[in-house]
Amino acid sequence: MTDVKPDYSGLKAIFFNCSLKPDNSDSHTQTLMNASIALMEGASVAVETVHVRDHELAFGVQPDMTDQGAARDDWPDVWDKVRTADILVIGTPIWLGEPSSVCRLLIERLYAMSGQLNDKGQSIYYGKVGGVVATGNEDGVKQCATSILYALSHLGCTIPPQADCGWIGPIGPGPSYGDKRDDGSIVGADNMFTQKNTTIMSWNLMHLAAMLKDGIPSYGNDRDAWKDGNRFGFENPEYR
Amino acid sequence: MTDVKPDYSGLKAIFFNCSLKPDNSDSHTQTLMNASIALMEGASVAVETVHVRDHELAFGVQPDMTDQGAARDDWPDVWDKVRTADILVIGTPIWLGEPSSVCRLLIERLYAMSGQLNDKGQSIYYGKVGGVVATGNEDGVKQCATSILYALSHLGCTIPPQADCGWIGPIGPGPSYGDKRDDGSIVGADNMFTQKNTTIMSWNLMHLAAMLKDGIPSYGNDRDAWKDGNRFGFENPEYR
Amino acid sequence: MTDVKPDYSGLKAIFFNCSLKPDNSDSHTQTLMNASIALMEGASVAVETVHVRDHELAFGVQPDMTDQGAARDDWPDVWDKVRTADILVIGTPIWLGEPSSVCRLLIERLYAMSGQLNDKGQSIYYGKVGGVVATGNEDGVKQCATSILYALSHLGCTIPPQADCGWIGPIGPGPSYGDKRDDGSIVGADNMFTQKNTTIMSWNLMHLAAMLKDGIPSYGNDRDAWKDGNRFGFENPEYR
Amino acid sequence: MTDVKPDYSGLKAIFFNCSLKPDNSDSHTQTLMNASIALMEGASVAVETVHVRDHELAFGVQPDMTDQGAARDDWPDVWDKVRTADILVIGTPIWLGEPSSVCRLLIERLYAMSGQLNDKGQSIYYGKVGGVVATGNEDGVKQCATSILYALSHLGCTIPPQADCGWIGPIGPGPSYGDKRDDGSIVGADNMFTQKNTTIMSWNLMHLAAMLKDGIPSYGNDRDAWKDGNRFGFENPEYR
Repeated sequence: MTDVKPDYSGLKAIFFNCSLKPDNSDSHTQTLMNASIALMEGASVAVETVHVRDHELAFGVQPDMTDQGAARDDWPDVWDKVRTADILVIGTPIWLGEPSSVCRLLIERLYAMSGQLNDKGQSIYYGKVGGVVATGNEDGVKQCATSILYALSHLGCTIPPQADCGWIGPIGPGPSYGDKRDDGSIVGADNMFTQKNTTIMSWNLMHLAAMLKDGIPSYGNDRDAWKDGNRFGFENPEYR
Repeated sequence: MTDVKPDYSGLKAIFFNCSLKPDNSDSHTQTLMNASIALMEGASVAVETVHVRDHELAFGVQPDMTDQGAARDDWPDVWDKVRTADILVIGTPIWLGEPSSVCRLLIERLYAMSGQLNDKGQSIYYGKVGGVVATGNEDGVKQCATSILYALSHLGCTIPPQADCGWIGPIGPGPSYGDKRDDGSIVGADNMFTQKNTTIMSWNLMHLAAMLKDGIPSYGNDRDAWKDGNRFGFENPEYR
Repeated sequence: MTDVKPDYSGLKAIFFNCSLKPDNSDSHTQTLMNASIALMEGASVAVETVHVRDHELAFGVQPDMTDQGAARDDWPDVWDKVRTADILVIGTPIWLGEPSSVCRLLIERLYAMSGQLNDKGQSIYYGKVGGVVATGNEDGVKQCATSILYALSHLGCTIPPQADCGWIGPIGPGPSYGDKRDDGSIVGADNMFTQKNTTIMSWNLMHLAAMLKDGIPSYGNDRDAWKDGNRFGFENPEYR
Repeated sequence: MTDVKPDYSGLKAIFFNCSLKPDNSDSHTQTLMNASIALMEGASVAVETVHVRDHELAFGVQPDMTDQGAARDDWPDVWDKVRTADILVIGTPIWLGEPSSVCRLLIERLYAMSGQLNDKGQSIYYGKVGGVVATGNEDGVKQCATSILYALSHLGCTIPPQADCGWIGPIGPGPSYGDKRDDGSIVGADNMFTQKNTTIMSWNLMHLAAMLKDGIPSYGNDRDAWKDGNRFGFENPEYR
């Protein structure tokens, strides 16, 4: 018998859409993200969507690029949302098999904050969990997920089991997720694999975020202690 | 103040070495893995090392390839060790910037078991955690970690924060981790980044494995329930 | 008006199939490779197919692993075929979004020969061209092509325009290229994108191989001259 | 005996620098690119450097995004330079093991032009050659080269042998290529591997560009002929 449906009020999620399009309502990626958002809202998670192109993020790897001479940088406002979130989901279209430039820009800015520590001396991302939604015409969901999940893990997020989902059609140009065909059918809507992976990703993000709500033990990963010379038992191995 | 050192007796870890070399004692990758093994043993984790080339794994993606005509397949014996482990660490040398063929063979065989479910209807890998150790002369730790961590995540493992470590020298041919130089110094031994990442990875694998010891809630990811038609709240989004 | 059909007698191509299956006739990848082979044979190219699993290749990165203690190594026989070929095509199935372990093993052995020079002091692969055929159920043609083409380029092959082709279905499990459906239709047969890319790849491999038949000028890439101290005009840039 | 030094007047090269920095003179990647530029200028190639951030490229995959509502798009001006170049070199810093967001933006805009054909009905990129320069502190030259070279090949460029070069230090944070150390030495300057690869890449780009100066035969790759129904001998293979 399966578990009863959990209530996850108290958790907060951010969904980033890294579409190249200025308008979120045109985004196929957003359409699939909406399925995940609905699952989370159904479990009482507080969800916020950030369409990255609604914000003018400066290029660079510092927390506020106006300190480096940029005329404008909306990142500090976006960061305020990230800082308090438990769940980060990055959605991206696939271009030439890779995440969008907007997605790389977002990752560079997330990376710019990796010097920030929580009150246990850990990366500020400890305790957060990360997932990926990728959509395209033909190929590259796994490649996008691979690259983005690694970045999130490297920053300090935990990656739950099967934390990615997406939709692509058969190889070659074609319609995108959520398009309406001439016969009235909806592209991607009947794909059980996409439905299942979206559901599993969404629930696993919530389960793990709840399990990590009180944080991760700091023994070994406390960067303040590292600076103070604590090595937590590390010894160089015997050499050959 | 940092946490006290935890005791993790009760946890079991497997370290796979995917060196191309037949003899484990020649492996630079093993040398670095030994540092992680020592940290885990120091926390009372039961550690087993599997030098993959000590076993004759058949090519293929079925649980036992002798059922498919292979003359020999040692995978079922190796699988017995994996099944009961809480922590999986995959160590690989880097060739042309990628994990070794032995590593891909191991991943294919782990993938061959992905139809196996635990008693909650989840992938058998749920509750396990995964990490990566990669060593080479010059380039590719991140690329190897990216690819292997994704595979582990896809199978059902949880990926803790910063779950990879490794060593490479400056670009170009050169000595490998653990080699003794003419002046008596040891290659890689004084690299603080490698020391730190190895320590953080090792402790984070243990912390997360302990947190997941009682498993992950099955709501949403119970594959038996999926087969029975349960959709856990998934609904197709409104289309455009 | 398009060019007349060239005659490429005098060129030699090797098609490597890196299927995990012991029997070539079971391989979906081979089915698609056959379309490319037919195009080349139609232009009078001498084509040889190597089903890698018909040969027992030892693990390792030396030219003959029996010199390193391996009980058997069929690589020297395979290498004889590579040495004299103008066109190398690597076919691979896609597992977890990546090329097969057999493919990585082949690449490691090709890499083992990178110390060999032609009579102009260049890598023995100079003048050869490389392409990729990848097939799977759902995702990863580009990722496989990306990884394999880079390896071939790194070794010294030239990569013609659009030197990869493949087939995948929509995301999720499904039939493979060349399977017969219950309604008698053939999976992948009507995919114009696959047809076109296979044709373009095949002809571009032949065009470039013919253009490179007399080799590539050795100024700058002559490794014997590098050993003798020739720098071919390289100077360190002015620093900052 | 090595070939005499060729004269490549008549060839034109563009070097794109995808640094995140607004000012080219701060870019470590530019420093290494300058070594390649000097080699090409020494062979009488006409070289132009484009610091991508000097131009305001709009996000999107259409030739001119002002047609899609963008307030400004400098891409058409940049494209004029690309159109007439024989050699394209993309330089990128490495962030989290991947090319910069500016680099992905450039690739998306190059991709936006892939519908353009030359007068033989081929992709406008046919006859051009592509290479990569990547620099960072610690890891990722191969991963960046892999991804970018594939994109260039997919668009229609030819990739010469060993068409990438770069510099990284040993794993972990550290100085960047071209930095001056306290002892007056210059980071990366004495790295023979970087010197050699930069030289080989530069000459191979010139050699191949010269060999392709009259274009590539259009049999098989003429897209106008494809539209007219010509299949250039393609036949579906016999199925199983």
